[in-house]
Amino acid sequence: MTTVSSDLYPVTRLAAAREATGAAGLDALLLTPGPDLRYVTGYDALPLERLTCLVLPAEGEAFMMVPRLELPAAEHSPASRLGVEFVPWDETDDPYALVAARLGATRRVGLADRMWAMQSLRLRDALPGAEQMLAGTVLRGLRMRKSPAEVAALRGAGAAIDAVHAQVPEFLRAGRTEREIGKDIADAIIAAGHATVDFVIVGSGPNGASPHHDLSDRVVREGEPVVVDIGGQMPDGYCSDSTRVYVVGEPPAEFVKYYDVLQRAQQAACDAVRPGVPCEDIDAAAREVIAAEGYGEYFIHRTGHGIGLEVHEEPYIIEGNTEPLAPGFAFSVEPGIYLPGTHGARIEDIVVCTEEGGERLNHRPRELVVV
Amino acid sequence: MTTVSSDLYPVTRLAAAREATGAAGLDALLLTPGPDLRYVTGYDALPLERLTCLVLPAEGEAFMMVPRLELPAAEHSPASRLGVEFVPWDETDDPYALVAARLGATRRVGLADRMWAMQSLRLRDALPGAEQMLAGTVLRGLRMRKSPAEVAALRGAGAAIDAVHAQVPEFLRAGRTEREIGKDIADAIIAAGHATVDFVIVGSGPNGASPHHDLSDRVVREGEPVVVDIGGQMPDGYCSDSTRVYVVGEPPAEFVKYYDVLQRAQQAACDAVRPGVPCEDIDAAAREVIAAEGYGEYFIHRTGHGIGLEVHEEPYIIEGNTEPLAPGFAFSVEPGIYLPGTHGARIEDIVVCTEEGGERLNHRPRELVVV
Repeated sequence: MTTVSSDLYPVTRLAAAREATGAAGLDALLLTPGPDLRYVTGYDALPLERLTCLVLPAEGEAFMMVPRLELPAAEHSPASRLGVEFVPWDETDDPYALVAARLGATRRVGLADRMWAMQSLRLRDALPGAEQMLAGTVLRGLRMRKSPAEVAALRGAGAAIDAVHAQVPEFLRAGRTEREIGKDIADAIIAAGHATVDFVIVGSGPNGASPHHDLSDRVVREGEPVVVDIGGQMPDGYCSDSTRVYVVGEPPAEFVKYYDVLQRAQQAACDAVRPGVPCEDIDAAAREVIAAEGYGEYFIHRTGHGIGLEVHEEPYIIEGNTEPLAPGFAFSVEPGIYLPGTHGARIEDIVVCTEEGGERLNHRPRELVVV
Repeated sequence: MTTVSSDLYPVTRLAAAREATGAAGLDALLLTPGPDLRYVTGYDALPLERLTCLVLPAEGEAFMMVPRLELPAAEHSPASRLGVEFVPWDETDDPYALVAARLGATRRVGLADRMWAMQSLRLRDALPGAEQMLAGTVLRGLRMRKSPAEVAALRGAGAAIDAVHAQVPEFLRAGRTEREIGKDIADAIIAAGHATVDFVIVGSGPNGASPHHDLSDRVVREGEPVVVDIGGQMPDGYCSDSTRVYVVGEPPAEFVKYYDVLQRAQQAACDAVRPGVPCEDIDAAAREVIAAEGYGEYFIHRTGHGIGLEVHEEPYIIEGNTEPLAPGFAFSVEPGIYLPGTHGARIEDIVVCTEEGGERLNHRPRELVVV
């Protein structure tokens, strides 16, 4: 069903997650469909109101509750290689009671970070003695440190989104709307091999000053900077995310001035990447360059976010995050400068921390692209 | 940004939700991005790790926590018409502490049914005195009873998916794989006006006996029944979902026999729809026809699910659900018969309960389609 590499989702990961669960003082992880479940098992299960849940005790046998309708999908998924018993439940069963009965008494359980409240509150009621924590507290240490196969997957996603940025100059013309340009980009994201389009931001002129603007019917005009921030998820589950700035014709002088500052800031942050450096220092490296040039108040967001099976995951590259970088950490470096009502710019690459420093996974030119 | 009709997302809904909150004995609803938030406000907010949360107290002023980056999106959304204060928070703020400080002491809060654990557990810790319930217990009474504008939206979604089914005979040919056929169908779902493709099931031959099979590289052969169950979400937020069965050439005799039974069962369930009838009676109406003909053990799922802003929502048409139907309830009627390893069939229409009985929103012929 799903494209899967045994390197990308090794069967050993279940044991690693189990060990981390015990080490964190939790009795079990309860993982419903989403990135935590996919990371541990390789199973890209549909998020449904019917409960699918991997129950991974620190000690004792793991099992997975599966709606009987989903049993063929589970059996065809990489989770079938793990030796985990699938426990199918029928339409009129109470799967929460079944989890509680099999799991027995527990004191602390870790819930998938994206588990829906309709499931977490029913698990709370079915397991009244169990304090609920986030599975992320257990899994983050594993998920942040990407394996070589995961880095290769992210590299593939980076190449795919680079191929889309290479086509943006064909799509971007004065007189077209952001939405028209965005439609072409979305098609190109799929054509480049992504399974899904996660976001397409085309921020022209003043819209470029709103970092999470998406698309509008605004017509792009000559001389306007256009921020293009795009990404998607590859069939193997790994995500892409890259931002470049384009301008149709001659850019405004003030823009050219701060774009140069931004480019130096992004470079400084990438240069600061090496094992042991706290995440917040990467943020500071970019911020200091921008602040020194007087644009500090216009850099209104964190410098980056981790990326993997989620487009935003740990580690966050933000003031206050003292987590030291380690080899395999993968994250965006994307400082921005935004002049409200006027225009804005952001340059974003995915960077992996290696023993030698940062390796960028995006390679399109970082200079302003004049089309 | 989003296509929105003020009829579809009336400003009066906030007051209705507030009143239902008080009537249910809850102090406040806490709604993060997802169908509950969209239903109450019209805001189709991105689900992100950064907290967006409508706080709707039974008494006192409502407010919405919004990451500062998302403030322009919120201001351009229909939520801006509601007179609800937007409270932007900055990257290094703790938005959970801000919710707690503004909300004050609470005893019981209702969480959006799809709120992520990473948010519900942080809200639990920030509001230690508040028992968490599901917002669904408050909102289900409102969400199940579709307004005329919502029924019109579902009718539009039904017409869009009917237009796709009308094209399936062009896509379905012996010698093509399920995946190739599914790709054409997915493109047609978007071309018919949907914003997203939610699922494409093409179950040929034995794959038709697995209700939630999606797509495979299996080649469709002459004489094989093919179950095609497809749906998506329209730009206005409302969903489509319809199943028909196709066969290339002459169908097997046994299949023809039970397909006729299935068609009568689906008709019987649709005929049983009228206000006051318990949901489980609709399930029984289909099940009795199938059981009487000796196929009871091959009908392995509930008869249907509600539909609206979610493709699966309340009411569920299942044994044990004594909820009486009321005008405006919209749900699927989709009995199936599945012979493991051989073939299977399902016929699915969306039906709305009216004062006069059931109104189907899908109109493609329900006879077996020979292509």
